[in-house]
Amino acid sequence: MTPYSCKSREELEQEHEALLRAFDEQKQLGLHLNMARGKPSSEQLDLVSGILTAVTTPEECMDGSLDCRNYGELAGIPSARAYWADVLGCKPEQTFIGGPSSLTLMSDVITRAYTHGLLHSERPWCKEEQVKFLCPSPGYDRHFRITEFMGAELIPIPMTYDGPDMDLVEKYVQDKSVKGIWCVPKYSNPDGIVYSDETIRRFANLNPTAPDFVIMWDNAYGLHEFDGDYRPFPDILSLCAQAGHPDMVMEFASTSKITFAGAGFSVLAASEANIAYFTKLMGVQMISYDKINQLRHVRFLKDKTHTLEIMKLHAAILRPKFHVVFDTLNREVAPCGFARWVEPKGGYFVSFFTMPGTAKRALKLCAEAGVTMTGAGAAFPYGVDPEDSNIRIAPSYPTVAELQKAMDIFCTCIKLAAVEKLLRN
Amino acid sequence: MTPYSCKSREELEQEHEALLRAFDEQKQLGLHLNMARGKPSSEQLDLVSGILTAVTTPEECMDGSLDCRNYGELAGIPSARAYWADVLGCKPEQTFIGGPSSLTLMSDVITRAYTHGLLHSERPWCKEEQVKFLCPSPGYDRHFRITEFMGAELIPIPMTYDGPDMDLVEKYVQDKSVKGIWCVPKYSNPDGIVYSDETIRRFANLNPTAPDFVIMWDNAYGLHEFDGDYRPFPDILSLCAQAGHPDMVMEFASTSKITFAGAGFSVLAASEANIAYFTKLMGVQMISYDKINQLRHVRFLKDKTHTLEIMKLHAAILRPKFHVVFDTLNREVAPCGFARWVEPKGGYFVSFFTMPGTAKRALKLCAEAGVTMTGAGAAFPYGVDPEDSNIRIAPSYPTVAELQKAMDIFCTCIKLAAVEKLLRN
Repeated sequence: MTPYSCKSREELEQEHEALLRAFDEQKQLGLHLNMARGKPSSEQLDLVSGILTAVTTPEECMDGSLDCRNYGELAGIPSARAYWADVLGCKPEQTFIGGPSSLTLMSDVITRAYTHGLLHSERPWCKEEQVKFLCPSPGYDRHFRITEFMGAELIPIPMTYDGPDMDLVEKYVQDKSVKGIWCVPKYSNPDGIVYSDETIRRFANLNPTAPDFVIMWDNAYGLHEFDGDYRPFPDILSLCAQAGHPDMVMEFASTSKITFAGAGFSVLAASEANIAYFTKLMGVQMISYDKINQLRHVRFLKDKTHTLEIMKLHAAILRPKFHVVFDTLNREVAPCGFARWVEPKGGYFVSFFTMPGTAKRALKLCAEAGVTMTGAGAAFPYGVDPEDSNIRIAPSYPTVAELQKAMDIFCTCIKLAAVEKLLRN
Repeated sequence: MTPYSCKSREELEQEHEALLRAFDEQKQLGLHLNMARGKPSSEQLDLVSGILTAVTTPEECMDGSLDCRNYGELAGIPSARAYWADVLGCKPEQTFIGGPSSLTLMSDVITRAYTHGLLHSERPWCKEEQVKFLCPSPGYDRHFRITEFMGAELIPIPMTYDGPDMDLVEKYVQDKSVKGIWCVPKYSNPDGIVYSDETIRRFANLNPTAPDFVIMWDNAYGLHEFDGDYRPFPDILSLCAQAGHPDMVMEFASTSKITFAGAGFSVLAASEANIAYFTKLMGVQMISYDKINQLRHVRFLKDKTHTLEIMKLHAAILRPKFHVVFDTLNREVAPCGFARWVEPKGGYFVSFFTMPGTAKRALKLCAEAGVTMTGAGAAFPYGVDPEDSNIRIAPSYPTVAELQKAMDIFCTCIKLAAVEKLLRN
């Protein structure tokens, strides 16, 4: 097929008509498919039903001599802290166990930075004249929203295939009002990029001017390969400590895409000094998170090795879905020559860059045909993609058959929006 | 027995010697008993083991058509909202379902008041020159700490047998910098006082100058009678609405003393406008609380009627413990004529007022003999009891036999500290 850029106006008009016909047919299907969020499918949730019966008697509620049915243990039960230390490669004393949502832990860190300051803050961030936060983009909309909500100015940092543009990050951290950066270091949301060793090394060796600069290291997909073997990943806490900045990083993870989405448990991992400081602040707002649910998870997931076995089962369900996305895009869109994407081996998303200026229009067409996607621009600070090009595809929730239909429609809409633009020029 | 105030110096010296002997004997017992916190006993926790198997299969994870294993439903699952509406006597739309800790919901409300303002705030509280909060005292230390932590000035309000001194409350709310008041309206912590209908009526009819004045109505012990029948209690949301201030109150409750302490679920109940505003704010920091645990609770507790049946079982365990406290105080301390307390029919505490200036000393003596109590002064703003008189007794956790030993020691220490003071005069 001729790339769109090489087509004559007449050829484009023919293509437009063909696409309109296809689109009308697809609309007739009356589909209602949602690919807006990285939700696990029911089939995945069924894999981990054992967790529902992991703790069923009072005797099973004991974690050693600790009765998990009663008050106490603000930072989490010993076995839960040991579990996450094993998974992340840090020490149990470097963990604080959260509830179902690691996002809530992140929000607590940023909120307390504003109201009280972090460990090395000169003052609460609300008393600073200006707070800026670095946002590698495209990135995770909910990250950006937390810092926006708390009044920070969001600075977009372009993503490269090795992670955020570190030249720019190193330049920005010289500005004292730059207080932190959001990172999803392994299978980044949405690009699926794994930060290179060199990127990670440069992160650990940052020399920010702000004494309370914080790397918000959301290790959301640390065990989430769907293609190939588990890929070990450096422990950022050790690297920052070795570089002389033990308190510069806060790492987060959860079981939302390991057990149940929104009924799992989460962790903040950081230096012991950070954990002590954060635990003191958290003691004002709670007694502890749900310790029985912590115990359920530890009993069911056991340790990193066993968790990785469960992740293989998730991978077997996710892999064919991602390949539907890759195959359909390669067949339907690649020959047209106007779009690009990466094909990750883990995580929950495919980040698709269509012809600039056409992403919003394409998603509007998708919606007309019954396919809901993440809003265009969502992956950028303030929800604004300056190129109007990036679209996040979340293939996990639909069945393979539904996904194939949705991707067929998606490709039609992408091409239709592109042709419309070319014909306007 | 002659009251201490009528004893001669010689009689006091004899009493002192006798008490010292008793104290030395009690120290020899080498006890380690903790009555610092209102923790349910293991026997109580064993009552509700059924909750551990209330949801065991994927099919049971459905709340109607909603799969509680996946993301969604920020304000809680429909059946959980209906459950709390039944318990509190409000509408499901007036509820937001929380995690294990209602304290966390309260902290979220106050934190967001500071960072963003409440529904009717003219500005975030952090931008106000001064924020004052009314603290009926003695009261719950963790309440006071939340507002202290967020920078409010704490104003103590004396408690009467009908609830807070409403003359004073009505006077204070004319001050625009007074932004709210903490209340435990039924079996107040620690006094065990039930607010009278007149007090509640006056609360609903407050006319504060601050447009965003908030009554923090912590209905922690709404179903928690241990003596006699359930005592119905007015719905503060309706009363405030009738008085033309539907948005002036935020009500809280949890199952911490119904099912498991720290692994239950909680609720914020408020006007629909307040719930809509709060839900929008909470959407930044979370996707939802643990919906499977919400479902477990609804399946196990069923409704208000069935929950009250479970509360009868708790009452049967708690009642003898409270009577050990009442009986021992009546026998050992009442005749000495220097102390006072009320004998509540519900809640988790007995509030004991000893001879002014001796509470700290008495608790130091208790600690020497192996009995840990809530710190003296804890129930007052900033942890300072101006009279050094109030002590909170929490009889729920020890066994009856342990409690009897602890109370014997407590009475010795109370009297010893009082005699010491009289001899110093």
